[in-house]
Amino acid sequence: MRFLSYEVDGTVGLAIEKSGQFLGLLSCHAGFPGTLDEIIMQGTLQIAADALANGSPVDPATVAFRPPLTRPGKVLCVGLNYADHVSESKMETPSFPTIFARFPGGFVAHGAPLICPAVSTQFDYEGELVAVIGKAGREIAEADALDHVCGYSVFNDGSVRDFQLRTTQWTVGKNFDGTGGFGPYFVTSDELPEGATGLGIQTRLNGAVVQDANTDDMIFSVRKLVSLLSIGMRLEPGDIIVTGTPSGVGAARKPQLFMAPGDVCEVSIDKIGTLRNPVVAQ
Amino acid sequence: MRFLSYEVDGTVGLAIEKSGQFLGLLSCHAGFPGTLDEIIMQGTLQIAADALANGSPVDPATVAFRPPLTRPGKVLCVGLNYADHVSESKMETPSFPTIFARFPGGFVAHGAPLICPAVSTQFDYEGELVAVIGKAGREIAEADALDHVCGYSVFNDGSVRDFQLRTTQWTVGKNFDGTGGFGPYFVTSDELPEGATGLGIQTRLNGAVVQDANTDDMIFSVRKLVSLLSIGMRLEPGDIIVTGTPSGVGAARKPQLFMAPGDVCEVSIDKIGTLRNPVVAQ
Repeated sequence: MRFLSYEVDGTVGLAIEKSGQFLGLLSCHAGFPGTLDEIIMQGTLQIAADALANGSPVDPATVAFRPPLTRPGKVLCVGLNYADHVSESKMETPSFPTIFARFPGGFVAHGAPLICPAVSTQFDYEGELVAVIGKAGREIAEADALDHVCGYSVFNDGSVRDFQLRTTQWTVGKNFDGTGGFGPYFVTSDELPEGATGLGIQTRLNGAVVQDANTDDMIFSVRKLVSLLSIGMRLEPGDIIVTGTPSGVGAARKPQLFMAPGDVCEVSIDKIGTLRNPVVAQ
Repeated sequence: MRFLSYEVDGTVGLAIEKSGQFLGLLSCHAGFPGTLDEIIMQGTLQIAADALANGSPVDPATVAFRPPLTRPGKVLCVGLNYADHVSESKMETPSFPTIFARFPGGFVAHGAPLICPAVSTQFDYEGELVAVIGKAGREIAEADALDHVCGYSVFNDGSVRDFQLRTTQWTVGKNFDGTGGFGPYFVTSDELPEGATGLGIQTRLNGAVVQDANTDDMIFSVRKLVSLLSIGMRLEPGDIIVTGTPSGVGAARKPQLFMAPGDVCEVSIDKIGTLRNPVVAQ
């Protein structure tokens, strides 16, 4: 199943793809099954899909997208999860996932602008696969880990490099308002290879390919991430894991290549979709 | 004003101190003004206080405390914010706040047990002052910063050191379930010195003083933290800033001193209160 979170004149809607077209309901319509946040927390994806199949056609070209989820309890971002990116970052290959947090207030929907901060000229892109937790658990065995993932999406982990690296902890530079592209779609696990492995992932800046890799290149697979992250904390439905970026980020290039107002950044992952965002000045 | 978030048989309540006793209402009572999360987000602290003044006496010795807030949008924790702790940690004095995130799912109320992880013997205490945002803002000038803080509380930033330091980012070791003591009370800003400066802060493990400092010793004051953190991200009502710990943490002692099942850890801050938690095995 492929879900589209959208809005029309400020009213939230949710649509599902059926035979190549999207059918949706707005929250003011009878039968609206809830937002994607709500139905994932309630574990009612299939019930929601059945309700939406009775909705009206929605043209993705004309509605405003919303981030697939807008209020995950935890946004767990993985740093240094592709070997070639570890190498270009001149960091050491981690023996355990390197985790920082983003806050949902910084999310930007597909089509909406990424905001280039006024205080920095080092606004960098990072194309990433998102895994969405659908079932709660703690100390989840690797063998069971994928049962806890209900689906996937695409993220552009926009990073303000000078603020990210100003101290040892990356949080500030990873959480500027308007820097976390998320979307366009949420695709349920059953539509993809197990663990979303073997998918091409590509980032383009103004059409030029700047990152080009495969999810098989991850150091810690989705399966391993779910298991390792749940050692200490209970994962809850609606939590998301942003699984890290391949090589090719702007900060590691010679010369460096950062996003600037007027640019367009796209992140594509096979079988999930293309997240496209213009870049504007703050 | 001094607020107490509590529960009775699973029903949430909120009380306010009046003339040395607490008066409160449960959520099932007419006139319940909302949880502290809700009234801070709505900016209705004074209206809530007036409503609670008509409540029934609440004995803090007999009710179960809840964390003052249970679902802040952002929990921004400051590392290395006391010079003597920077020194004992063998880190460099930061020129900008060192920020990591905690997730509210790991909070533990006053009186409830801190959970000593099964996978680690390095469960450390960190007594800290909490500042609560009451008014939204971005790029807040230092001069205005304290207008955005509605009150304060006490935190024990329980840290699983081996997991915290397993990679460069501290997130995993700072977010084990049941490790973030928070409470006992939320005290509004007007009850304290401006910016909560000049307050003694002390941590005791089984009655022995292990941290003893003053909030004046912070490298980045609450005023500065609010201003600097809002450079990149909009602060929202209900967000909390956990302002860092003084020297004396267990990991830096010789020999090291970690919390173990059977211990009791207390964090006291002048004019706010004493957060007391037993430690139990997972």
